[in-house]
Amino acid sequence: MKIALAQLNYHIGNIAGNLQKMLSAVEDAWKQGADIICFGELSVCGYPPRDFLEMDEFIDQCLEAVETLQSASRDIAIVVGSPMRNPTAAGKDLYNAAFFLYAGEIKGIQHKTLLPTYDIFDEYRYFEPAKTFHTIAFKGKKIALSICEDIWNVGNENPLYTVCPLDEMMGEGPDFILNLSASPFDSAHAKERIHTVRVNVQQYGIPLFYTNGVGAQTDIIFDGGSLVMSPDGSVFDEMPYFQEEIRVYDLASVLEGGRDQEQDKDKITLIHDALVVGIRDYFEKLGFKQAIIGLSGGIDSAVTTVLAVRALGKEQVRVLLLPSQYSTGHSVEDARALAENLGIQYDILPIKPVFEAFESALHPFFNELPFNIAEENIQARVRGVLLMAMSNKFGNILLNTTNKSEMAVGYGTLYGDMCGGIAVLGDVYKTEVFELARHINASQVVIPENSISKPPSAELRPDQKDSDSLPPYDELDRLLFQYIEGRKGPKALVSMGFDPVLVTRVLRMVNQNEFKREQAPPVLRISTKAFGSGRRFPIVAKYSI
Amino acid sequence: MKIALAQLNYHIGNIAGNLQKMLSAVEDAWKQGADIICFGELSVCGYPPRDFLEMDEFIDQCLEAVETLQSASRDIAIVVGSPMRNPTAAGKDLYNAAFFLYAGEIKGIQHKTLLPTYDIFDEYRYFEPAKTFHTIAFKGKKIALSICEDIWNVGNENPLYTVCPLDEMMGEGPDFILNLSASPFDSAHAKERIHTVRVNVQQYGIPLFYTNGVGAQTDIIFDGGSLVMSPDGSVFDEMPYFQEEIRVYDLASVLEGGRDQEQDKDKITLIHDALVVGIRDYFEKLGFKQAIIGLSGGIDSAVTTVLAVRALGKEQVRVLLLPSQYSTGHSVEDARALAENLGIQYDILPIKPVFEAFESALHPFFNELPFNIAEENIQARVRGVLLMAMSNKFGNILLNTTNKSEMAVGYGTLYGDMCGGIAVLGDVYKTEVFELARHINASQVVIPENSISKPPSAELRPDQKDSDSLPPYDELDRLLFQYIEGRKGPKALVSMGFDPVLVTRVLRMVNQNEFKREQAPPVLRISTKAFGSGRRFPIVAKYSI
Repeated sequence: MKIALAQLNYHIGNIAGNLQKMLSAVEDAWKQGADIICFGELSVCGYPPRDFLEMDEFIDQCLEAVETLQSASRDIAIVVGSPMRNPTAAGKDLYNAAFFLYAGEIKGIQHKTLLPTYDIFDEYRYFEPAKTFHTIAFKGKKIALSICEDIWNVGNENPLYTVCPLDEMMGEGPDFILNLSASPFDSAHAKERIHTVRVNVQQYGIPLFYTNGVGAQTDIIFDGGSLVMSPDGSVFDEMPYFQEEIRVYDLASVLEGGRDQEQDKDKITLIHDALVVGIRDYFEKLGFKQAIIGLSGGIDSAVTTVLAVRALGKEQVRVLLLPSQYSTGHSVEDARALAENLGIQYDILPIKPVFEAFESALHPFFNELPFNIAEENIQARVRGVLLMAMSNKFGNILLNTTNKSEMAVGYGTLYGDMCGGIAVLGDVYKTEVFELARHINASQVVIPENSISKPPSAELRPDQKDSDSLPPYDELDRLLFQYIEGRKGPKALVSMGFDPVLVTRVLRMVNQNEFKREQAPPVLRISTKAFGSGRRFPIVAKYSI
Repeated sequence: MKIALAQLNYHIGNIAGNLQKMLSAVEDAWKQGADIICFGELSVCGYPPRDFLEMDEFIDQCLEAVETLQSASRDIAIVVGSPMRNPTAAGKDLYNAAFFLYAGEIKGIQHKTLLPTYDIFDEYRYFEPAKTFHTIAFKGKKIALSICEDIWNVGNENPLYTVCPLDEMMGEGPDFILNLSASPFDSAHAKERIHTVRVNVQQYGIPLFYTNGVGAQTDIIFDGGSLVMSPDGSVFDEMPYFQEEIRVYDLASVLEGGRDQEQDKDKITLIHDALVVGIRDYFEKLGFKQAIIGLSGGIDSAVTTVLAVRALGKEQVRVLLLPSQYSTGHSVEDARALAENLGIQYDILPIKPVFEAFESALHPFFNELPFNIAEENIQARVRGVLLMAMSNKFGNILLNTTNKSEMAVGYGTLYGDMCGGIAVLGDVYKTEVFELARHINASQVVIPENSISKPPSAELRPDQKDSDSLPPYDELDRLLFQYIEGRKGPKALVSMGFDPVLVTRVLRMVNQNEFKREQAPPVLRISTKAFGSGRRFPIVAKYSI
């Protein structure tokens, strides 16, 4: 028996487009002699469809796509993910379903059981969990169908859940497991995925074919890495990261095992590639072509610009250098050198004249009050307005360059440097931005060394440095990681050795800047806890820290 | 037996503050001879605590507050809501619990069963549903404890759920039901609440004491309206809307019934009062004093300013008139008249000089390209920068004046008129803004008649009117309501009689402006479907409309 896995880049709501892509994959797999082709979770509509699931006509369109695939399943079985209605009155309106289509018929349907409702996931908002568990008989084999999270509770040891759907199916003696996933990327996820698949294979002693989606849906990035694991726990194949691919596997060979096709999983390489895909899909899926970036000479905008060029091509990236009266000559030179290294269009537009117009306009109110955060923010906002004006006039999209450390502590100006369509580095700590810069420069210097080595500064007042108001980034990032990803409270942090004064100060900064993050652009997610839909904190709150 | 209901304004995360407030209410109720005092759902930490629930030390603090109340329960039973840990390894980490404390002991605990996971609610993200259901014996009575949604599935007829917790308790023959709620306001909610409570009372034939919270937590507003219903289905008492209150009820009198204390529920009055509370609590709970508003002479900023004055007092509201070269003289006069009617500080700051500085700065790029949306947006953003500069310099908070119709179709400038700490009218359709204005002017003209009667305009180019690019607001709002609140798809809308061309155009506008709403301020929620955390749509999506 030959099994094809189709690792595709779906587009949320583009049901016609997803269907076309799947029909062409079916044709391709059939030509290669496949008996079955397996797509990803909710592949007809893309994942996560969010509240589109609450619209009747959206569900109708999904089910029509499934019907079309059913008609196309004359000579090859098609396994596809789609929402479907719960026919009973009790419980949520929908199931998250895998359809097994063959010979123009629905041969079986398996609903998803374990509905992730944490971090970026809201599945219990929409779906009722599976109540029944049956294998599918096909050409003399029995197949256990499962959807994404359903393989993440082997032995019922995941404290989030109380049932293990595969355990329920094992009584019927399946020959192999097919898993339809839409499992988002984070920099450690590929490793965990292999571990989890292996735990299943070892528990049940049968091969597992795991199909993931690929590509980005705004903030959420899918890395692919679809897997075939033999009963001996060896990686028979791991599909490429961040690329569409269709591969056909012979079940008999998979059963033999003994291969090791696992790919390299260097963290910074994965983050780099994820961000490139994140930018590319944001533009492609929204129908945009050109990006604009404000280039400061600092490391964040430099790395963002390189990633944008790699995602979109150098003709599609334009930068503005927007020096203030406090910018050093070096900053402009570093920015210019980067633009020249990349061969992209750059222009220099000093903000001083516009800033002075604001100063004059506000003079009747500000009088002789000292220069402070108000004037700093005006400068950042003048840049925002200039970049957005270029965006509006020429139709290019502003990329935001704020990093995760800044976003965490609120070191950024709302409506100023926090403008943009998507925050490319919003889930990348400053220390990781340095790692990205070194990774980019590994074979050839693209980012001027000075942008990497000089002390970070917003350059909004004379001789300003980030370290004037923030602790050193290596210390800050370690603390932020334990608070944000680790969800450690102040007592735990102090007991881990962090300075109590620093803990109080930094946690307050993080908590009190929720209002800024609420209005920040969506953040490309590369960690297990990114700012955005996966981290939900109240704004009007008091923090007993 | 005397039962006190405490309808309090909790503050998320302010566990010490909430505890003090509850201890003082206990003292008060005890002095009035109460045998029991009942607080609201999750009263120790405020609702919704969101991802604070994922922090161990936060749960510790909640449980310490429960312990303090336990010690205070010597002579009066205290019923309080708090998260608590799930002692078993299986399922979610927490329960949403009601503690019955008396004589310094925990006499009983009831977990919440029905965990709302829709709209603004994410309870299944955190909580495991109740597994056991028991009444509490107290002074010869049996009490059925229930939490909020637990009374919303009588007869198991709510399709979201498959169990009715009160049905499970009825075998023990409870004498009355206590319900601890945190049930958010919408303009029809008070009516539905009474209906639901009545359905329970009629089903079980015993009185129901329902305690709601009051006040706003950023976007989510609680209206109070705590209820006591007699077994005959009559409203024994309904507590005031939008005010803290503690009242003590004699069970024997409640059992008699025959009273009708239901309050008036005029929709626009309720919305008005909700918005006032929403503004007031945003400021009080964040420790802010003064608001600043950009006053255009139009109806949205006029209504927002009146609401702000009613929430904060006229000394605490300052307005800027920011006329463009396209503003009519009438607009400035209308804005000035409103400010004078309200007796608030106003200043006039024409934006033309700063706009011209931007035009000069951008001239090398824009050259002779025609004036378009780019220049319109620059003007709106100059206003945003000026208002934010005043906010930064003087510490007052900018209120956003965008209405729901504009927010729906994206008729507003990101980083321009979409700036602000909170969007006061972001859940109020334009046609409802007119109703609010008439309500405000009912006894005395506060808002100049011209601001109400003139055709709405952004005044960003010569002779601009909203109706140049939008359908008439009454038609637009009817369509938007059916799409947003009603979740009707394009086919259903056309079959309801809406023009197919208009449907396609408006739905596209709504969908394609998700990126703007993603960066909008939080919206005070007064409907069943507000923009914000209760409406989750992807940005990178294709809409098959």
